[in-house]
Amino acid sequence: MHSMSYRIEKDFLGEKQVPADAYYGIQTMRAVENFPITGVKIHAELITALAEVKYAAAMANMDTHMLPRKIGDAIVAAAAEVRQGKLIEQFIVDSIQGGAGTSINMNMNEVLANRALELLGEEKGQYFQCNPNNHVNMSQSTNDAIPTAIKIAAYRLSEELITALSSLQAAFAKKEIEFDDVIKMGRTHLQDAVPIRMGQEFGAYARVLQRDINRIKHASKGLLAVNMGATAVGTGLNAKPAYVERVLYYLKAEVGIPIELAEHLVDGTQNMDAYTELSASLKVCAVNLSKICNDIRMMASGPRAGLGELKLPPRQPGSSIMPGKVNPVMPEVVNQVAFQVIGNDHTICLACEAGQFELNVMGPVLAFNLLQSLKILRNAAAVFEQFAIEGLEADRERCKMYVEQSFGIVTALNPHLGYEVAAQLVKEALKTGMTLKELILERGLLTPEEIEEILNPVQMTTPGIAGERLLHLEQ
Amino acid sequence: MHSMSYRIEKDFLGEKQVPADAYYGIQTMRAVENFPITGVKIHAELITALAEVKYAAAMANMDTHMLPRKIGDAIVAAAAEVRQGKLIEQFIVDSIQGGAGTSINMNMNEVLANRALELLGEEKGQYFQCNPNNHVNMSQSTNDAIPTAIKIAAYRLSEELITALSSLQAAFAKKEIEFDDVIKMGRTHLQDAVPIRMGQEFGAYARVLQRDINRIKHASKGLLAVNMGATAVGTGLNAKPAYVERVLYYLKAEVGIPIELAEHLVDGTQNMDAYTELSASLKVCAVNLSKICNDIRMMASGPRAGLGELKLPPRQPGSSIMPGKVNPVMPEVVNQVAFQVIGNDHTICLACEAGQFELNVMGPVLAFNLLQSLKILRNAAAVFEQFAIEGLEADRERCKMYVEQSFGIVTALNPHLGYEVAAQLVKEALKTGMTLKELILERGLLTPEEIEEILNPVQMTTPGIAGERLLHLEQ
Amino acid sequence: MHSMSYRIEKDFLGEKQVPADAYYGIQTMRAVENFPITGVKIHAELITALAEVKYAAAMANMDTHMLPRKIGDAIVAAAAEVRQGKLIEQFIVDSIQGGAGTSINMNMNEVLANRALELLGEEKGQYFQCNPNNHVNMSQSTNDAIPTAIKIAAYRLSEELITALSSLQAAFAKKEIEFDDVIKMGRTHLQDAVPIRMGQEFGAYARVLQRDINRIKHASKGLLAVNMGATAVGTGLNAKPAYVERVLYYLKAEVGIPIELAEHLVDGTQNMDAYTELSASLKVCAVNLSKICNDIRMMASGPRAGLGELKLPPRQPGSSIMPGKVNPVMPEVVNQVAFQVIGNDHTICLACEAGQFELNVMGPVLAFNLLQSLKILRNAAAVFEQFAIEGLEADRERCKMYVEQSFGIVTALNPHLGYEVAAQLVKEALKTGMTLKELILERGLLTPEEIEEILNPVQMTTPGIAGERLLHLEQ
Amino acid sequence: MHSMSYRIEKDFLGEKQVPADAYYGIQTMRAVENFPITGVKIHAELITALAEVKYAAAMANMDTHMLPRKIGDAIVAAAAEVRQGKLIEQFIVDSIQGGAGTSINMNMNEVLANRALELLGEEKGQYFQCNPNNHVNMSQSTNDAIPTAIKIAAYRLSEELITALSSLQAAFAKKEIEFDDVIKMGRTHLQDAVPIRMGQEFGAYARVLQRDINRIKHASKGLLAVNMGATAVGTGLNAKPAYVERVLYYLKAEVGIPIELAEHLVDGTQNMDAYTELSASLKVCAVNLSKICNDIRMMASGPRAGLGELKLPPRQPGSSIMPGKVNPVMPEVVNQVAFQVIGNDHTICLACEAGQFELNVMGPVLAFNLLQSLKILRNAAAVFEQFAIEGLEADRERCKMYVEQSFGIVTALNPHLGYEVAAQLVKEALKTGMTLKELILERGLLTPEEIEEILNPVQMTTPGIAGERLLHLEQ
Repeated sequence: MHSMSYRIEKDFLGEKQVPADAYYGIQTMRAVENFPITGVKIHAELITALAEVKYAAAMANMDTHMLPRKIGDAIVAAAAEVRQGKLIEQFIVDSIQGGAGTSINMNMNEVLANRALELLGEEKGQYFQCNPNNHVNMSQSTNDAIPTAIKIAAYRLSEELITALSSLQAAFAKKEIEFDDVIKMGRTHLQDAVPIRMGQEFGAYARVLQRDINRIKHASKGLLAVNMGATAVGTGLNAKPAYVERVLYYLKAEVGIPIELAEHLVDGTQNMDAYTELSASLKVCAVNLSKICNDIRMMASGPRAGLGELKLPPRQPGSSIMPGKVNPVMPEVVNQVAFQVIGNDHTICLACEAGQFELNVMGPVLAFNLLQSLKILRNAAAVFEQFAIEGLEADRERCKMYVEQSFGIVTALNPHLGYEVAAQLVKEALKTGMTLKELILERGLLTPEEIEEILNPVQMTTPGIAGERLLHLEQ
Repeated sequence: MHSMSYRIEKDFLGEKQVPADAYYGIQTMRAVENFPITGVKIHAELITALAEVKYAAAMANMDTHMLPRKIGDAIVAAAAEVRQGKLIEQFIVDSIQGGAGTSINMNMNEVLANRALELLGEEKGQYFQCNPNNHVNMSQSTNDAIPTAIKIAAYRLSEELITALSSLQAAFAKKEIEFDDVIKMGRTHLQDAVPIRMGQEFGAYARVLQRDINRIKHASKGLLAVNMGATAVGTGLNAKPAYVERVLYYLKAEVGIPIELAEHLVDGTQNMDAYTELSASLKVCAVNLSKICNDIRMMASGPRAGLGELKLPPRQPGSSIMPGKVNPVMPEVVNQVAFQVIGNDHTICLACEAGQFELNVMGPVLAFNLLQSLKILRNAAAVFEQFAIEGLEADRERCKMYVEQSFGIVTALNPHLGYEVAAQLVKEALKTGMTLKELILERGLLTPEEIEEILNPVQMTTPGIAGERLLHLEQ
Repeated sequence: MHSMSYRIEKDFLGEKQVPADAYYGIQTMRAVENFPITGVKIHAELITALAEVKYAAAMANMDTHMLPRKIGDAIVAAAAEVRQGKLIEQFIVDSIQGGAGTSINMNMNEVLANRALELLGEEKGQYFQCNPNNHVNMSQSTNDAIPTAIKIAAYRLSEELITALSSLQAAFAKKEIEFDDVIKMGRTHLQDAVPIRMGQEFGAYARVLQRDINRIKHASKGLLAVNMGATAVGTGLNAKPAYVERVLYYLKAEVGIPIELAEHLVDGTQNMDAYTELSASLKVCAVNLSKICNDIRMMASGPRAGLGELKLPPRQPGSSIMPGKVNPVMPEVVNQVAFQVIGNDHTICLACEAGQFELNVMGPVLAFNLLQSLKILRNAAAVFEQFAIEGLEADRERCKMYVEQSFGIVTALNPHLGYEVAAQLVKEALKTGMTLKELILERGLLTPEEIEEILNPVQMTTPGIAGERLLHLEQ
Repeated sequence: MHSMSYRIEKDFLGEKQVPADAYYGIQTMRAVENFPITGVKIHAELITALAEVKYAAAMANMDTHMLPRKIGDAIVAAAAEVRQGKLIEQFIVDSIQGGAGTSINMNMNEVLANRALELLGEEKGQYFQCNPNNHVNMSQSTNDAIPTAIKIAAYRLSEELITALSSLQAAFAKKEIEFDDVIKMGRTHLQDAVPIRMGQEFGAYARVLQRDINRIKHASKGLLAVNMGATAVGTGLNAKPAYVERVLYYLKAEVGIPIELAEHLVDGTQNMDAYTELSASLKVCAVNLSKICNDIRMMASGPRAGLGELKLPPRQPGSSIMPGKVNPVMPEVVNQVAFQVIGNDHTICLACEAGQFELNVMGPVLAFNLLQSLKILRNAAAVFEQFAIEGLEADRERCKMYVEQSFGIVTALNPHLGYEVAAQLVKEALKTGMTLKELILERGLLTPEEIEEILNPVQMTTPGIAGERLLHLEQ
């Protein structure tokens, strides 16, 4: 059997063996033992942001003469490496964990301390030289460092999501133009209503998505108020005002995001409403995207026993048994992502409601779900646009056929014949199989010319009374 | 202005004017002042059940010589009246209220005390003779009386729901037979798959609904364990064992439901999982009903620009503007009821999770939602059956046409030609507009007789390989 | 038996008896028969708003010469009566109904038509003179009139909610000042953390609530884009542009709300995201209020076996069995309202996702839940402020005692002694029962004067390092 | 730069380069391109179960002479390897994907085909010899193979979960005995109620958890009905009855779970209610566990400024800033897992409701969430038991002190003095600071001996009237 070498670390609860070459330490080990829950590691975006927080804190602590420059420089160098994605395998705590993120924070503190020690030419574990708590975590608490990192990670992902959604929105807007002359039957209650242009439908999709983008943008601004300097409960104990000013300065410069200090740090530490607000906006977007995908899948149903109004680009064989079958896999995956985002929002709300007094200790599950929602929505939007919307085609003939077959156009007769007479015509047509035109002519209700003028599908898709001129003649 | 006469009542918090002719008293008045929330009164079923609880408690307290017979008889008589629906207007507290149901309980205690006083020839408010707390509530606490009443009310509604769902299930089973010979295209991913019989689809609906009925039946049994005698926290303080035995005896006889005493009264008082379990089963049913309604609405879409496979009985003009339009209002209302039940389940879970220590104080909102879910699901099932399923018709011609037009039948060629060749045939047919048969013949892949044997839609709806005989010849 | 007189009405589905004195007509009757679901009538606010829509449409139709002035004036007069709350008992359709609100719309159209007929000196049901569809519903569809009315009703309730929440927020802000000098133990993870001032906690409540108010205000603006003139599917068929301009003009003036025409009427008819957005903001607020109520209930726990830091005004006897018990019924009812609002949001999202093509037919359940959420949150905020926050008192002695007994102040020693030494002191103190001060002195770690300077609870509640001066001496 | 070698594969949509050494093929490549969503791979338990399905199908196809033995044996050997966890890195499709699991199924079909080819001495990609569709997927469809595999994986995890919960339940039951003599104040509404024994509380936890176990057990039985042989839509097209009988035989033997063929295969293919039912039972359990954890965290609050009735084993330093602080991380992680499970249930319901016609295409997101819920609940239960409940201790002195200080015992006076008198005593005691005993004696209401007999906390925790003997003397 392979022999493994260890170092001994201790904390106020006792000692533990840590693999000799590990950058993490005893508290990380405890967390791994305590929380073997999901098997899913912390989102990389959160690791990156936390490294930036540690960098900024070290810089600020040096500026305020709390942290010796030699140690501080080593921490800064270590944080820079983590920021670049190095040592990522050293972050081994589970995404769902007790303790409000203390284990994420300590995993980072330990990795940076040991890497800094290494850079200083010391042995790992010689925390007297560079200590995870006293030096790396100096002037900080889990309760300010972790929420700040979550907010930075979430804000960045929000920006990426907004970019992806904007691109999808533009693709819908392009289809609005492309499909502007495709006359089709409008449907309400899944029943034939009155004619509409397919471009109008895609225009509606583009607009609701634009509102979603606006909502997400608006909600993401709530992330910009961070609570660095709040320390344990928001009172700022152990964080010098000068440090607070400097840490914000360095952090803002490093992350390139217009973060600001929360106006009231007790509030900023206790409340997670920035997460619930953002998640709620994602949920509203998910609901809308799911509706759009449902529409598209129905319009693309067929090819022979469905509506067949749209043709999605084929992306993969759709069946392991039915040859030639192609399924609408892209909208389907968007539906599923939407369901995940909606479920995640539920988890986020439960976790947010569970906050107590000065802190919400459910931060880990909050971050896990919020960052996941942001990522999968971004990813789904991108492939949906690229693989489904860009190459989407309308079957103009099929759309036209439905309009011609349908009775929905009877609505245009309302102002001319009244609702009751029109309703009787439909009933009669359904019974006899005659067309509306035939019936109207047979009964002498209108002349062929009048019918032509009133029952014009294109005109029906624009505001106003079809054949209004006749109406005035009639009166 | 109209002058109103009052009596003065007091409790340990002070005095209050109560309308002279009111049967309720000071605590009801306080509750009305404190909780002007929904404007919706307590479910009548809960009032009835609580009156039965009070009747049983009075009987048991007389049996154990705690309650003087004269007072007890008057309470019993008053409870009987309320049980019959009298004095219903005296129950004026709001459905959502603080206090775990104390206000519902006290509203009942006060109404019964005052009505008992009246029956005893006393003035209302003369509680020395018959006191809401000391006599009507004797040996009880809100914490046992209210959950017991909720469970009785919920169980009764569950039984009614099961009856309604069973009747709906039978209606689906009837359609399974009626539509057994309707060959139609099966659809997966909203794309043409392989033929199926509409009877098979309705058979599936009947079966999932049967499982829902079983689930609700099973879950409702959890309601049968009541905690009468638990008093405040489940320890049974102030409830004599003999009383507990008697109150169960009388209550069981009165309500005609096989209730039993909870095995562990602290558990029975603290935990509301019987409600969440039942609500979860309602939610699962709601999800299934919603799916069925979605299917039916899609199959009934049209009349001209939709699938048109089903015809729902017309129930009401569907549009205030489109003459002759008829909408699938019955499945639509079932969808909406399903959404309400699912949302209510969410509220119920939140309320259940909020229980603390010996009691869940969120009982009122739990009861409000649980009883509503039971009622609206029962009501929706009844009208859905009567107004939508009973008269539902299949458009056999339309169903047949889709099968004939579709390529889904190509799957039957797999065992004979292989997946790849079959897939190429579909691709070719879509491109050329030729039928599969034409292509197969043109390429000499099969003889006309073989085609006839393999591509038989009816046979495709039963297990096995269409044209298996040929397969063995081939090998 | 009482003999009832009827009139006969008919529509394209047949005839029906309508009570002779009823203002509603055949379509209302059909809806009542089809949808006996909740037993809860349409929110009065929606009836009012719909009457205003009908008024505005009639005015606009007269202006555009579509509606004869005599009929129009009668409709306007009838609508004015309904707006004032008259004839409210004539609105008998259920809150949950199939048909996207057609039954609400037709109930209104029929009541106004019959009342108008009466005003014109005609018999009820003589629809030739004034027809529910052709005259009252002229230029409208359920699909524009109903969403417009829902939005007006929701906006008004939003305004009332914002007023109630603002008042509650001010009450919290007042407590922030009143409790500013109450030093207490801050708690994280329900474990003693470091000192905080109770005013800081209430300041946090005030701030999160202010953000909620801002969110609701922002979200409610989405309601201002109405789709009058969209008619059936948003294309505006049968609605003259001049009418659209006039109906907006009249409606805006009548309702006194800055409504505007939706930029894109197909979008405005198809999408319900204004509702989900508003509901999401209510949900976020509910989550926050629930957290605040949880805190307050815990701080008010006791009187002897709880934290006892806060005293809520006694509102009602808390128990039917435990004498003198008073419960925190006001925060409890707010918790329950929060759960209801969160569950309603779920229903609203499900309903919104179920929209298809040109219309979301789940409007009734959407409106039912949205308006309920707005109302109960408004009501709960009002009584919570009045009956719980206004008279809330802090137990200063108790708060002080906890700070003195606790070890949380050890955090202030970190910069002076290091995390490890401080942790050992706590461990030792817990084991020996000694105070931190005694231990520090015993070990000669600090002088009595230094201890006094560092372990100052008041200073700990403000940013910075307690005893920072000493730190510089130490270095 | 490293040069990579490829093979070319093709399907009916075209060609694609596949890494030469990959066991997966073109369809897997397409899926990876289409669905870069979560970055989380398919649950290993699902891969294992699907390999078992493929093994059983190959065996059955050989038995029914559909599959040449040489090819079949190679597939069986390949499936055995995957079952043992080999080639796990070849399963590269994302957990959330469009297509109802076709990509998972084809990933498996391709891996097995290529591994079988290798075993047969052929080149990878030479599908003529052993084809992913024609041979590995023979007689199957994604629509039967995938749901069957999901059910097997979920059932196994359910069994593991039940084991973990049963062990936790036993730990609670042990504490019920251990804490049976710990008298403490019962609390309702977070207010002092009447005495209770801590063992009774843990007995309640043990019982609700036992019901949860029963519920999960009951619900997991729904997974046992699998639909192998259903093929595309449940009609069994292309699956010979003999095959169906054999595949069940082999699969049952292989997996060691009492699976059975669904009674109605169209139902078994269309409906996912077995998942929602199981998830609902997990949710109910999560709600209960969360409540228990809330209680434990509150009882363990302190050490000085909280209730301090329980002591949790210290598991890790609780704070990066507050020395010596230890947090209740184990119940906290259970709370978070509970929130995740509840949110997942929401996603599962949304996905289930989205099923249409013959298939629910949302299977991937369903499986992703269901299997995750099962796993994290199992994991959380295990560590909660081991690290929190096993070593849990009661602070008997503290519990006793609360009982002695509290007024809750006054309830025992009700039968002796009446509710009103008792309530006045409490009010007086609160005002004067006197104890109840002092007041009673001062007023001569009872003798010291009577007080002793009535106000006995231990007796108060058992059913009946404390000092009942006296009561009979009084009367």
